[in-house]
This record gives sequence, structure tokens and C-alpha cells, in this order.
Amino acid sequence: MKFRVALLGAGNVAWNLAPALEDAGHEITEVYARTLGRAKEITERIYSAEPKDDLDFSESRAEIFMLALSDESIAEVADQVILPEGSLLVHTSGTVPLDVLAYSSASYTGVFYPLQSFTKGKKVDLDEVPIVLESEDEETLQKLKKLAKSISPMVYSLGSKDRKALHVAAVFASNFTNHMLRIAEEIMHRQGLDKDMLKPLIIEAVSKSLQIGAKKAQTGPALREDLETLEEHHRFLSYNPQLAEIYRLISQDIMDS
Amino acid sequence: MKFRVALLGAGNVAWNLAPALEDAGHEITEVYARTLGRAKEITERIYSAEPKDDLDFSESRAEIFMLALSDESIAEVADQVILPEGSLLVHTSGTVPLDVLAYSSASYTGVFYPLQSFTKGKKVDLDEVPIVLESEDEETLQKLKKLAKSISPMVYSLGSKDRKALHVAAVFASNFTNHMLRIAEEIMHRQGLDKDMLKPLIIEAVSKSLQIGAKKAQTGPALREDLETLEEHHRFLSYNPQLAEIYRLISQDIMDS
Repeated sequence: MKFRVALLGAGNVAWNLAPALEDAGHEITEVYARTLGRAKEITERIYSAEPKDDLDFSESRAEIFMLALSDESIAEVADQVILPEGSLLVHTSGTVPLDVLAYSSASYTGVFYPLQSFTKGKKVDLDEVPIVLESEDEETLQKLKKLAKSISPMVYSLGSKDRKALHVAAVFASNFTNHMLRIAEEIMHRQGLDKDMLKPLIIEAVSKSLQIGAKKAQTGPALREDLETLEEHHRFLSYNPQLAEIYRLISQDIMDS
Repeated sequence: MKFRVALLGAGNVAWNLAPALEDAGHEITEVYARTLGRAKEITERIYSAEPKDDLDFSESRAEIFMLALSDESIAEVADQVILPEGSLLVHTSGTVPLDVLAYSSASYTGVFYPLQSFTKGKKVDLDEVPIVLESEDEETLQKLKKLAKSISPMVYSLGSKDRKALHVAAVFASNFTNHMLRIAEEIMHRQGLDKDMLKPLIIEAVSKSLQIGAKKAQTGPALREDLETLEEHHRFLSYNPQLAEIYRLISQDIMDS
């Protein structure tokens, strides 16, 4: 089943979704952004779409309107967009509740959340991205499932509470993991050491964790309750009290787990 | 240049180093463990070594004695081991200072620290493991360099302060990264969600971080200073105050970076 989709937004998510949807045989009718230039960054990646900088979609041929926007902008754009009769409006956020779309002119609403951190300019293989759906309307959910399954084999339909849990978990798994790597890089840099020395360790640690589970994969001074080393590391980090506190707190949590 | 090496210890490091050293042409003369059974777990992996459960090495033909022990045991075993004249004693820890070997019967001392988290039963390709060396004696350092280069192309010689910085960085990069994944797994589990949903996100996040650097790779609510989401997530985690505090503190550090 092929759909006509309008994309609202010209960021990382739109940059990745637009060609993926088109490749799967759907038609992107329009791409909206605040400026035509921004919208063209996306339409240039695909065949058919028209760039747009106004929110009047009353003449659009699209059936599904997809808000690929930052979390802060979703409610505002949803309130302002003028949609044709019978249209389905979805957002692509892991965080924003479904009901922020309640005051829009859409007949049906839903969530179409690709669980991945996208970057403009770096093409992500959507085949390996789980897509999380939500809607209170069963027919809408079936429609979104068809759309999602056409670009990814991993499609989940969750309620808002599940989606929030998933997003919190994703923050730990992705943003906070990345921040641990950031801190490691900075300790190396401060000491004049090559951060690439850590690469094999990181790759091995993460692949082991994914293979046997993080609980079994843990090693290190906190797990061994090696208080002397913990104390020494804490002292080493005293140049940055917030960092020392992060070290203390995570070590404590490893010991408590 | 080939060496005769005695290994003291039968844990993850010895399990991995013994065959790697033998494959590189060195001779493992003995493997010591508290019980012969444990020592045999290692000697069975290689051709020539004799298992041993006593610390009298006065008749050993080895030139290099390698303490592949837990950090806590290094000083004790170093004090007790009886070594032949002219021998070189090294430990394999990233944490323990070189001078804990000062009271041993060795003529020369050093550190031979493979920067990797080893697991027994999971063979690590030492080709991709940096080896960090330390010694106050230039000739010893040269000898250790030869030994290290025979099993890994990445050999670094660092002072004790550098090695400590490296170890703190490694704790963040490996143990703490793993703990973030652990927390994510548990949030998913608690909500009855499949933790494998997060796998693609984790793989993408880490590979992006290694590719473009963790600073540039960061995304998420803390980076966007999306206080509403941070507050919501914090509330979501209120069932475990320590977890909520970890969330708050790392988010704060991301905002401050």
C-alpha cells in the first residue's frame, strides 16, 4: 500500500526519512520549512516534492502529514497547520505526548517515532531502525503500521507511558553513553594522551555488553569494590568537582546493583 | 627477539596472554596459581608451560615474570615470590603503581598493561589491544617494548601519572558506558519492553561518537536544554532516587560542557 506523505520539518529526521519513504514507493507531496531554502535542502534529495514555507495544506493531496520537528515546535506547528478533511497528522518524537496534536485541524492523530539518533549528511540504514507507533484509533494504527513496515522490519506499537520509558532508556543508552565517552576523551586530552588509545577498549566493551548483557559484562574497580582505586580516581578528578561527583555516584550505583 | 616468560596468575589476562605470547614465539616456562587445577586451566591452552602452586621460582629459566593478578594481590605476591638473579618482574594492571614491586626480589621492575577488558573464554585479538609500558630502567623498557611489539602494533610507554589518567578515562569509556547500558536495559525490563529495541540506537551512537568525536556526536534533551523533558524524565525515575540523581547530574554536565 502506497501513501502520499507531506513532511513538515527540514532537520535530521526529515533529511533521512524523505528518501527512505520515496525509495519504499510512497510519494512525498510537499516539504515544509520556515524558509524555502531549508525546505529545498530536503526536496533536492528526492524526485517529486514541492518545497513550501507556509502552513496552508488545504489543497494538499497528501493523506499523512508528518511533523519531523524539534520537540519544542510540535505543538505550535500542529496548532497552525491547515489540513484537508480526513487527514492524519503524526509527529516523530519519542518524548512529546500524542495529545499535543489534539487541537490541530487533523481528523486523526498518531506518533511515528524512529528510534535512532539521526544526523544530517550521514545516511542511516532505516532497515535497522525500530519504529515506534502510537494512536488511539485502530484504523490509524493499521495505516501507520503499513507505512512503518515498508521502511523497517522492526515496528512496535506502544502507549504513551511505554514510549516515555523507552525514551528515558534511550537517553541512557545513547546520550549518556556518549557523554561517558566525552568525559574519557577530555581526561585523555587534558593529560596530553591520544584518545584513540581507548578505541579498542570501547569497541570491545560495547560489543561484549550487547552480546552477553550489560549486567554480566561489567568489570572494573567499582564492581570489585576496590575502594582504594575508587578513592584514588576520585582524588585524581578533584580538578572538576562535578566530574568527581559523577564518578562517585556511578561507582556507587555499580556497587549497589 | 624471543623471551622466556613465567606467568603468575590464572585469570582473564593470563588466559588471553599465554597463547598470544606463545604464538609470537616466546616460551612460557611456568604458570603459577594458588591451586594446580587453576594453573592447569592456562597451561592446557599452550604447549610448554609447567603448572605451579608455589612461589619459589629460584630455579626458573624465565627472564620475565609477569604478574597477571587482581590489583589487590599484586603487592602480596610480589613480596613473596622468589626470583632468580637478574630477573625482570612486571605487573599487568592499569591502576597499581610501579613501586609496589620495589620490595620484591626482582632486579628490574616494570608495567606491561594491555588496555582491554578481557573475559575468560572469549579470545581477544591482541593485534588491536594497545599495550602500555612503564619502567624506570631504560634497558628494561626496551626489553618490554620488544615483547609488547611482538603481540601488538600499538605500544605506548607512559609514566605512572599518565597511566593513572588513562585508567580513569578507561573506567568512564568502558565500565561507566556499560553501566549506562545496564540502566537502560533495566528501565526497559521494568516496563516490560524488549531491550533489543535499543540495539540499533546504541550501535549507531557509539560508532558515530568514535567517528566524529563525542562532543560533536551529542544529541538529546540535555544538549537541547529541553528542561521540560528533563523534568519529566526525572519524575519518571523517581522510583529510584539514586537513578534520578544520576540522570540529573549527567544532564547537568552535558548542559555545562
